Amino acid sequence: MMRARELGVPFEGETGANNAITDVEGTLVGQTTLISGEGPLVVGQGPVRTGVTAILPRGPEGDPVFAGWYALNGCGEMTGTTWVEESGFLQGPVMITNTHSVGAVHEAVIAWIIEQPFFDPENPLTRWSLPVVAETYDGGLNDVNGFHVKSRDVYAALDSAKAGPVAEGNVGGGTGMVCHGFKGGTGSASRRVLVAGELYTVGVLVQTNHGARANLTIAGAPVGREISDLRPVRGDQPAEEVATDGSGSIIVVVATDAPLLPHQLKRVASRVPIGIGKVGGLGENSSGDIFIAYSTANLGAAGEGLRQLTMLPNQVISPLFAATVQATEEAIVNAMVAAETMEGINGNTVFALPHDRLLEVLRKYGR
Amino acid sequence: MMRARELGVPFEGETGANNAITDVEGTLVGQTTLISGEGPLVVGQGPVRTGVTAILPRGPEGDPVFAGWYALNGCGEMTGTTWVEESGFLQGPVMITNTHSVGAVHEAVIAWIIEQPFFDPENPLTRWSLPVVAETYDGGLNDVNGFHVKSRDVYAALDSAKAGPVAEGNVGGGTGMVCHGFKGGTGSASRRVLVAGELYTVGVLVQTNHGARANLTIAGAPVGREISDLRPVRGDQPAEEVATDGSGSIIVVVATDAPLLPHQLKRVASRVPIGIGKVGGLGENSSGDIFIAYSTANLGAAGEGLRQLTMLPNQVISPLFAATVQATEEAIVNAMVAAETMEGINGNTVFALPHDRLLEVLRKYGR
Amino acid sequence: MMRARELGVPFEGETGANNAITDVEGTLVGQTTLISGEGPLVVGQGPVRTGVTAILPRGPEGDPVFAGWYALNGCGEMTGTTWVEESGFLQGPVMITNTHSVGAVHEAVIAWIIEQPFFDPENPLTRWSLPVVAETYDGGLNDVNGFHVKSRDVYAALDSAKAGPVAEGNVGGGTGMVCHGFKGGTGSASRRVLVAGELYTVGVLVQTNHGARANLTIAGAPVGREISDLRPVRGDQPAEEVATDGSGSIIVVVATDAPLLPHQLKRVASRVPIGIGKVGGLGENSSGDIFIAYSTANLGAAGEGLRQLTMLPNQVISPLFAATVQATEEAIVNAMVAAETMEGINGNTVFALPHDRLLEVLRKYGR
Amino acid sequence: MMRARELGVPFEGETGANNAITDVEGTLVGQTTLISGEGPLVVGQGPVRTGVTAILPRGPEGDPVFAGWYALNGCGEMTGTTWVEESGFLQGPVMITNTHSVGAVHEAVIAWIIEQPFFDPENPLTRWSLPVVAETYDGGLNDVNGFHVKSRDVYAALDSAKAGPVAEGNVGGGTGMVCHGFKGGTGSASRRVLVAGELYTVGVLVQTNHGARANLTIAGAPVGREISDLRPVRGDQPAEEVATDGSGSIIVVVATDAPLLPHQLKRVASRVPIGIGKVGGLGENSSGDIFIAYSTANLGAAGEGLRQLTMLPNQVISPLFAATVQATEEAIVNAMVAAETMEGINGNTVFALPHDRLLEVLRKYGR
Repeated sequence: MMRARELGVPFEGETGANNAITDVEGTLVGQTTLISGEGPLVVGQGPVRTGVTAILPRGPEGDPVFAGWYALNGCGEMTGTTWVEESGFLQGPVMITNTHSVGAVHEAVIAWIIEQPFFDPENPLTRWSLPVVAETYDGGLNDVNGFHVKSRDVYAALDSAKAGPVAEGNVGGGTGMVCHGFKGGTGSASRRVLVAGELYTVGVLVQTNHGARANLTIAGAPVGREISDLRPVRGDQPAEEVATDGSGSIIVVVATDAPLLPHQLKRVASRVPIGIGKVGGLGENSSGDIFIAYSTANLGAAGEGLRQLTMLPNQVISPLFAATVQATEEAIVNAMVAAETMEGINGNTVFALPHDRLLEVLRKYGR
Repeated sequence: MMRARELGVPFEGETGANNAITDVEGTLVGQTTLISGEGPLVVGQGPVRTGVTAILPRGPEGDPVFAGWYALNGCGEMTGTTWVEESGFLQGPVMITNTHSVGAVHEAVIAWIIEQPFFDPENPLTRWSLPVVAETYDGGLNDVNGFHVKSRDVYAALDSAKAGPVAEGNVGGGTGMVCHGFKGGTGSASRRVLVAGELYTVGVLVQTNHGARANLTIAGAPVGREISDLRPVRGDQPAEEVATDGSGSIIVVVATDAPLLPHQLKRVASRVPIGIGKVGGLGENSSGDIFIAYSTANLGAAGEGLRQLTMLPNQVISPLFAATVQATEEAIVNAMVAAETMEGINGNTVFALPHDRLLEVLRKYGR
Repeated sequence: MMRARELGVPFEGETGANNAITDVEGTLVGQTTLISGEGPLVVGQGPVRTGVTAILPRGPEGDPVFAGWYALNGCGEMTGTTWVEESGFLQGPVMITNTHSVGAVHEAVIAWIIEQPFFDPENPLTRWSLPVVAETYDGGLNDVNGFHVKSRDVYAALDSAKAGPVAEGNVGGGTGMVCHGFKGGTGSASRRVLVAGELYTVGVLVQTNHGARANLTIAGAPVGREISDLRPVRGDQPAEEVATDGSGSIIVVVATDAPLLPHQLKRVASRVPIGIGKVGGLGENSSGDIFIAYSTANLGAAGEGLRQLTMLPNQVISPLFAATVQATEEAIVNAMVAAETMEGINGNTVFALPHDRLLEVLRKYGR
Repeated sequence: MMRARELGVPFEGETGANNAITDVEGTLVGQTTLISGEGPLVVGQGPVRTGVTAILPRGPEGDPVFAGWYALNGCGEMTGTTWVEESGFLQGPVMITNTHSVGAVHEAVIAWIIEQPFFDPENPLTRWSLPVVAETYDGGLNDVNGFHVKSRDVYAALDSAKAGPVAEGNVGGGTGMVCHGFKGGTGSASRRVLVAGELYTVGVLVQTNHGARANLTIAGAPVGREISDLRPVRGDQPAEEVATDGSGSIIVVVATDAPLLPHQLKRVASRVPIGIGKVGGLGENSSGDIFIAYSTANLGAAGEGLRQLTMLPNQVISPLFAATVQATEEAIVNAMVAAETMEGINGNTVFALPHDRLLEVLRKYGR
């Protein structure tokens, strides 16, 4: 798996050890990738090009984390957000899958929680679950109406979640996604920033399925205008383009160990559009561009009794905004650089962003 | 099934023909009620006291309706709201069920839509679905972790949806609910109001699972303080009370045929708390009090090309606010008056609001 | 000045020492009342029936307080709210005046701040001011287009702010207001609640200029329906009623010493409509019903460096919601009970709520 | 006055006739510029470097326009937004000035409205005013605590408002502003876009006072990193930099003649951050980045009786988002290109972006 920095794409800022959301200590990522079958679509039988991604903010035992969310464009789904907004807490994992598997993942997450050792059916505060499940649409490549994500796949993603490098491209929930008319998918990146004398980490994970080709911009260079061929093709109508008009969606999860309160995390989430915009996204109409940000600081904040908390002052928060924007930008590009050309239902094909031509464009524009 | 007005509870305003959400032409309601088993809880086997309610704003073919939503207390779930907020439209039915069946209902609604004659997998605007599924928690009476709401139950609710009177009390999604420490459930009511020379209808459907006993107020009388016995009992600890502190939730669906735009429907939804407050609800902490309002006017508003719309001016909107508050209040009381005493898991029992004692209290307070 | 409790109106809950917002330690209130002239309106010359109210959360030196806000109906003004929402802090006083004096008060507050000893023009964080100034409309009694609130009146309110009892009725910003078709104005109330073993205070100050007569409800009794006469009269058209349809506005300020974070204070502010609704308000169309809630706990939260904070858990917050609703209800009734009949411009007259008849209605309804 | 396109900066999209917000028919702009004095600051005496900008959506008679707003960063002020949000309408002009003149402008706008022929003190719907007044801080160059914007200056801006080219740079409310560490101010731009077979115009006016130098990006080129000298200097401490860390603010007004409803205009406003981000803004902490979007279509929408409206479907709205982003980006650059080096209080100096060096950087990066 190639990553954008290794390829030579220049980015600002200093990354964490893995340049991934898992650089925020405690955060684990697990992904189940479902790829099977080829040829004509037979609903329920495939071909299958989908999956599910699980982000566990504090690992499986999951003390709730402070969180905030924002939707640049709400034409998508992220369940559980009214609870995040009201309580200030994100409890349990963040799941990302395809649009029509939200229900299956929602139920499976609850089933999984019920089986965990920490679950207490007598505890009135935690006996019910309102999971966070987000989605983007992969019906161009995947038998999305076949409901192929099953309970076992969700368990597999949750149970395999781990620290360290995060698989990118055609994996997990991002398996069948399309980004700026090239193959998209899962991407991640991180930044280390010095704030008020302390080093904090901001990690981002994206599932990219958005963006018009014409607007694709990498490191300031107009890559989409320079590489206008290699558009998605329909297997049954090879001359026709698919989904390069910016419809689609992007889900962004921002993690940090900086001690931010819920209203500050909402501020962080609302800076994500600037990162998306740098790569050429516009929050186009039918795009579900929904973002959640959480902080792993303040362990135990959801406990009983008067809570003792720490908070980073607003006055010094801007470097965390910058880190969020930078890591979002890089994670999107990482998703595209890692993704490989994929053929899905009916022979529909989405091409990978060609690395050599990308570098050529960057050179042309002084990068 | 007794209703509050028949019993003699006084309410303000003039009702529609059925005093139900179905008085708004086009709106159909279907409910599946699942009641089986008794005795000790065996997760997955029951006892079962749950169900699902389907509200189809414009019937099964479902041209999208303008809609708005508001959460008094977001500690609950109503999926699909980011889409409503962004697009201004509610597409498809509003479903209400128990907390842990949100996923099953979500997937089943999509499966049902895919099978409808109007579904077109080639239409980029409607080939994906983001259903609205709301919930309240029935784990005090129901084997909520047994996931008993199945796809067939969701289909049954959708396929049986009809105009006319709406079943209330222990039915549909409201089957196992508790309201102000009495048996709650599904309730409905409507109002007819003259606005700018036209008669419009406001219909409300509620799933009530909220409220502290002490605060229960009916027609201005402090019913909860006057009837402080008959509290829920646990079968295994008969001396202990269950859930009368105001935790729980209430979902409210407001329908109208008045031509309101999305931002006006949000205004309507945000008046619902006043109706809840009149009966004694406070939006207590863990209550998920989430409301959606839609208008069946402006048929075809979601179509192609420049749309021609009508809008009621803000200047004359207040009677619709009043109707919403009144119908919400009456629907909650209807849910309680219709509900019957229920024994659920482990012999847990929630008592019906005793009609005779209610009337006694009303008389005492000059009603 | 009579207060509702002294008169015998029953309310729930235990009040603080003064049953006023000043029961929250640190909070001071100052009011300037401008009453002069009588007879026909001559714009710029009067008659004048207006004023300004200043609430200083922590006294004149004003370390910022955590705050949140909510608008039931935004057809009004409260400046400074975008800053409150973004930063989580309320810095400086909350001012309330008439609709057309918002500008004068806004400038005067800044001028006043600049003259305070704590002002530092070199401090990039505080050298600019974004004051919170709210309003309701008194043009039925006051020469509102005469701009009679001057800088000196704003200084007087700020400089005279004090702890202890709060003047109610025809005083301060509330001088010329109308509430449910009776004379309204400034009102206040407080509650003491035991939360997690600690006694906390919730104090409320309202400026009431809202509500339809028909909906006026006190202690659950339909006072407005029982006292349907004594409606406002226009001096030039004595047979005509003025402003009893629910237009107008209400501003509510909620103070507490409970350690709540900004998102929790937003939750508090969003419960205010339930209190307004209990007295018969509906958030009618042209009513500007805007609320701000702040906490005097966490002194120094806006300072430099990593902040140490305390937070009350969400699990125990409901009693503070109840206190907010109760104190809002009582403060509105206090404003009406204290207000006296007033004749304003052109001989327009608004009558006081008659105490004896109020008590009669309460008796009739078992209160 | 030089503009960015004339200088050779490449932008995407087709502009309107004047490449200004006034390309949206009906919209007029008036600006009052106050520049006087030099040398040491004497509060109340100057030096003065400030002004006021008036945007009249439909000219002086001002039938209300549908509108929506969004704050990327609320650490600033735009009065009147709660009314816009609730009613869906913007009534009267949008004013922009310095932070401490918000009050003076607010009062003066009301006074001006009262004097207009269309004002009717008997009309309960329009006899009160809740003006929209926004601000950014010019205290680095201007005697901001001297309150130099007077009623006559506001009248002058309103009365001189006209169609045609819009003055840019050191004019109007933007007179004393700083943008990415260069001289900022007022800027404007427009786009013509074909939507569903019709040509629509999107016009933008900005008051720029935001952005860190290091992040300044023009046409994708890292201008701020390449031109790191010419930073603002304090007259009394020439070696010290002023305000290049991204504090400050940006106000953006978006006008269009496309028939969009209020919730769609909110969508437009929420795309503005992507345009700001392309030039290097991040919504830094103390920046008040507040945006309002309005549509001049649907004349008479605020009138009496059932309204007949037109609406552009969401399906075709994305080109308007793109136009908003492009025009915002260009308007910011126009503000910087037009602004000239300014010396203000105490000899503080902010330098103009040097045109020759800008072109050099663009060439270096292949532009």
